[in-house]
Amino acid sequence: MAASQGKIILYSYWRSSCSWRVRIALNLKEIPHEIKPVSLIKGGGEHHSNDFREINPMEQVPALHIDGVTLIESFSILQYLEDTRVHRNLLPSDPIKRAKVREICEVIVSGIQPLQNLCVLIHVGEEKKDEWAKHWINRGFRGVEKLLGASAGKYCVGDEITLADCCLIPQVFNARRFHVDLRPFPIILRIDRELERHPAFVAAHPSNQPDCPPEAHK
Amino acid sequence: MAASQGKIILYSYWRSSCSWRVRIALNLKEIPHEIKPVSLIKGGGEHHSNDFREINPMEQVPALHIDGVTLIESFSILQYLEDTRVHRNLLPSDPIKRAKVREICEVIVSGIQPLQNLCVLIHVGEEKKDEWAKHWINRGFRGVEKLLGASAGKYCVGDEITLADCCLIPQVFNARRFHVDLRPFPIILRIDRELERHPAFVAAHPSNQPDCPPEAHK
Repeated sequence: MAASQGKIILYSYWRSSCSWRVRIALNLKEIPHEIKPVSLIKGGGEHHSNDFREINPMEQVPALHIDGVTLIESFSILQYLEDTRVHRNLLPSDPIKRAKVREICEVIVSGIQPLQNLCVLIHVGEEKKDEWAKHWINRGFRGVEKLLGASAGKYCVGDEITLADCCLIPQVFNARRFHVDLRPFPIILRIDRELERHPAFVAAHPSNQPDCPPEAHK
Repeated sequence: MAASQGKIILYSYWRSSCSWRVRIALNLKEIPHEIKPVSLIKGGGEHHSNDFREINPMEQVPALHIDGVTLIESFSILQYLEDTRVHRNLLPSDPIKRAKVREICEVIVSGIQPLQNLCVLIHVGEEKKDEWAKHWINRGFRGVEKLLGASAGKYCVGDEITLADCCLIPQVFNARRFHVDLRPFPIILRIDRELERHPAFVAAHPSNQPDCPPEAHK
């Protein structure tokens, strides 16, 4: 299906946690793809250009060109990959476990990330933005940590990597960027350590992206 | 399965748009359930009580007790109902159409609602909250309207009611609460009119909830 429709292209920004979620899933599922960087900084942001607005009317990354269509919204993209690339499942087959995975995803995807993304922080203003981001990440991570207390094995839900892990790891990176004290979240920290050397997660890391500026490399 | 595990209970607040999404889906799928109102106002909010924190560590409605477990996060709950109550599908079977439904859902569930929910508006402050809510609803609806331009038939995606409609209608109600001018969004308005008399949507409406205060009835 994919091959007949041409190359898979991910529109991505190196530090975007939503792009990063999709990069992890593409790597875990071993789906060959090309990354087209979209700078959220250059010239006020390439995502606001007329050309990119045609790709994503929400003027955000990621967008994924796949199977002849362009898909937007990272969690929707993750589930499309899950629906169509079934050789490496990132959702458990048991419906209650699937719900537990999606709960953790949703706390991050709806409850944390939207409140600390770039366009909201610009609106909050330079002076207040760090305190604002910290507040919402802390609030969300308190919930995630409690959910993980009931669901986690080696990873977020049991011992297999799921979509919840694809969402959690980029959010931990953002938490560190905003100097959130992560010590109250020992399960989150343990899972982050567990996955920091996993090849699919390493390859998806901001510092390994083609558009990562040299000064940001670890 | 459901019957053997006892009654299905939805923890809901009459004016919560996230509770409302789930109420619509339960009605469309004709799933018998009991509504337990949780006041987000009384005594600083019953959702912050110790008892409710045991039900939902995120201290939010909705929560759904079903099949022996308690599920949280409205979009995850919707997808659980879709996974387990298959007699009235709210996601198309075609994976690209499913992605289009989930895209619209995600713009609302992650891109609009979290930025205008009660706990964020409290944080924004009385003086600025209306302008703030309006800004994010307008931004999100501009994206939704463009997506609908490509996907809508009678409803959000084609001519069948989907999860996208369950998410859209409550968000239109919120837009009106914040006095958003909806005239730039003719497709959204048309779908809202299409569904305002649908029995599943009528029964789920805030004004028809057991905890709707008498002065708020239309």
